[in-house]
Amino acid sequence: MEALIIAAGKGSRLNHRFSPKPLLPIYGLRLIERIILTAKLVGIHRFKIVVGYKADEIMKTIGSGEKYGVRIEYIVNPEWEKGNGVSVSKAKQYLKGDFILLMSDHLFDESILKKLKQIDLDDGRCILCVDRNLDGNHFSLEDVTKVRMEEDSVRNIGKNIDRYNAIDTGIFLCTPVIFEALEESISKGEYSLSAGNQVLSKTGKLRTFDITGDFWIDVDDGISLKKARKILVRNLVKLTDGPIAKSLNRPISTRISSKLADYSIMTPNLLTLFSFLLALLSAAFFFLGTYAWIIAGGVMAQLSSVMDGCDGEIARLKFKYSQFGKWLDRILDRYADSFIILGMTHACWLASPNKFVWLVGFLALTGTFLNSYTALPYDEEILKKKLWRKRRWIRVGRDMRLFIIFVGALLNQLFFTLILLALLTNIESIRRLFILRNAYKYVQKD
Amino acid sequence: MEALIIAAGKGSRLNHRFSPKPLLPIYGLRLIERIILTAKLVGIHRFKIVVGYKADEIMKTIGSGEKYGVRIEYIVNPEWEKGNGVSVSKAKQYLKGDFILLMSDHLFDESILKKLKQIDLDDGRCILCVDRNLDGNHFSLEDVTKVRMEEDSVRNIGKNIDRYNAIDTGIFLCTPVIFEALEESISKGEYSLSAGNQVLSKTGKLRTFDITGDFWIDVDDGISLKKARKILVRNLVKLTDGPIAKSLNRPISTRISSKLADYSIMTPNLLTLFSFLLALLSAAFFFLGTYAWIIAGGVMAQLSSVMDGCDGEIARLKFKYSQFGKWLDRILDRYADSFIILGMTHACWLASPNKFVWLVGFLALTGTFLNSYTALPYDEEILKKKLWRKRRWIRVGRDMRLFIIFVGALLNQLFFTLILLALLTNIESIRRLFILRNAYKYVQKD
Repeated sequence: MEALIIAAGKGSRLNHRFSPKPLLPIYGLRLIERIILTAKLVGIHRFKIVVGYKADEIMKTIGSGEKYGVRIEYIVNPEWEKGNGVSVSKAKQYLKGDFILLMSDHLFDESILKKLKQIDLDDGRCILCVDRNLDGNHFSLEDVTKVRMEEDSVRNIGKNIDRYNAIDTGIFLCTPVIFEALEESISKGEYSLSAGNQVLSKTGKLRTFDITGDFWIDVDDGISLKKARKILVRNLVKLTDGPIAKSLNRPISTRISSKLADYSIMTPNLLTLFSFLLALLSAAFFFLGTYAWIIAGGVMAQLSSVMDGCDGEIARLKFKYSQFGKWLDRILDRYADSFIILGMTHACWLASPNKFVWLVGFLALTGTFLNSYTALPYDEEILKKKLWRKRRWIRVGRDMRLFIIFVGALLNQLFFTLILLALLTNIESIRRLFILRNAYKYVQKD
Repeated sequence: MEALIIAAGKGSRLNHRFSPKPLLPIYGLRLIERIILTAKLVGIHRFKIVVGYKADEIMKTIGSGEKYGVRIEYIVNPEWEKGNGVSVSKAKQYLKGDFILLMSDHLFDESILKKLKQIDLDDGRCILCVDRNLDGNHFSLEDVTKVRMEEDSVRNIGKNIDRYNAIDTGIFLCTPVIFEALEESISKGEYSLSAGNQVLSKTGKLRTFDITGDFWIDVDDGISLKKARKILVRNLVKLTDGPIAKSLNRPISTRISSKLADYSIMTPNLLTLFSFLLALLSAAFFFLGTYAWIIAGGVMAQLSSVMDGCDGEIARLKFKYSQFGKWLDRILDRYADSFIILGMTHACWLASPNKFVWLVGFLALTGTFLNSYTALPYDEEILKKKLWRKRRWIRVGRDMRLFIIFVGALLNQLFFTLILLALLTNIESIRRLFILRNAYKYVQKD
């Protein structure tokens, strides 16, 4: 499947600072780069981009697509000022099959494309993704293109139609009939894509696809740019986040990440190492064993826990996913956990040199490890079966453990904290084993 | 894809003890059950079985397939004594599309079916899997059906042909042309499947598919039955087995498993628990700390290591794969590792009460856990990239760790053993991180 991206317009409402608009940076990636990388996530590797306004600048900056691992070809439209319908029509001779049509200034979640790609285009009609939530605050009702739909067919479409029940999101799955429709509307002197779509809708050739609730936003002006930044950060929260991560760590770490993301030096792996360093400091402080150091150790453990979110957030914000990065983070987290518990146990030993302290430390370490170990199949099953909604039990994950350590350190109750950790983590591991047993029952073959 | 299994014959060479032959038990599963479960592994869920000799007994024992999670229909052939060609021909009216044809007494590896299913049958020819190794000791050359092939076409086939360069393995991918061929040969008074195949070969409609090197065996008499049992056990060795597992544990555990497999009470999970129990005993013995107990602890650790192989072996031998069983084994192994190291550290502490002992114990435990943790992505990548052939470095896995503990205990050198474990396991974890980085480079996206 190919994608056609329209990046020919001027985007006049933003252009006092950023011009051309497709090159507007958001968290270290330009708008059009985000579109390309989002499409790449669902396996689209070939792009045609229609350029017009400041075409050279866009082509020079984005290039052949090699740096994104995709193939990009450009179609220059000297008549870009007429309207975006003309820009789409210029692609006619280059696109013979079905294709995805995207706007260079409409950000969206890749899940939309995933669903869109699965649709059968057998009936030859084009498909327009629509949002049925007219009260959404991710667009301004005056500016958007409205749609009147009946069942899954578009009856009318345009900026200034009277009756409408959905919003045009600028995401299409097209067959080449779109080009015929555009020729007709252009020959009548109407140059917008909506005019072409209206022609399609008259002959019943434009279907709708409801994406209400999914993320999409038209980055049109300063306000929507701000909103886009906000929503992108909000989407960083993970479904498997524990209660402390959700309510304490994530709000802080996403704020940090959104600041750091604009700097290209801030790679996910660098942040992984930084969080590990904080954990090592925490362990060293605990090791020293006086109350002042213990407090410092607790604070550092919690800081490390917050920073531990940033690597993944930056990776998602900047499309810098990497299997190695994921495992580097996991492995360093395990070492961090181990050293912090070792430091705590040593502090307890200094306070009361009794071998029982070490036994408890051993058990706390064992349970902590088992938690991380079981998290691998457990999170997967939970995500697969959507069990996270049912969970009322407070999940003992890393966020919770480090928070308990933080509080325990402030209260100067490290030994009690170790006992609590040993109990909680081992009970949680055994509980997960039972949940896994139930989760696997459906696929079990014996 | 459907499979047709021929289970109508008498199998006279074995029938003094087992009759009918398809119901012959091997490691707790009957021959025909193994065929069904092997085919199920590659996604075949619908079976037609032609029965004749003792048809009622087979139908009653095997049933509708519900207990195997498949659908089985029976075709009764009263003329089974004429020959297996007649049995195949009886399925004509029930099979309209392509199907896999199997013999109820030919065991084989599922990888053969996996490859076979991918073949394009566009040209309408049938496909016969052949073994080109005429010196193989898994069959007796007098009894097998021989094939003379040219390129990938069968030129001649039969038990008593003069020139041949391959062996008929009894595994086919058929189109309905086989039924026409059988009608022709039967009308000439030749009732064997080979006669039908000869008709096909005359018109160029029988292609060969080379499976030389893959496991298959015709369980025809007492000798081949013994060989089949031997090969099934030999195939239990895993590619990711470490050196101790391969050379010491596996030879013992497979011998134990082959004895236990005949008893239906011996489930994989029961054996997992048994191995865990031995490890707990080992930990308790170590904990006591005198040399005699330390030796007992070491022996018990090694025994547990040997028994740790049995659960997986029984699962594979009896097709009792289960995701839960895999994770139960993994999680209990981690607890076992932890308790054994705790016991060892305590023994060292009793011998010399110095906190340094606990520090080393902590590090040994950390490294041990990290080894198991990294094993999950590491083994996967190694299997995917076939890196195990290149590895010259001795893999520090669980087999190696428990063997080191065993030897260290015999020598009464637990503290030195802990130091060694701490070093080896942590170095190995870091080494794996680098290997993962290289392995992931190809798929890395940033």
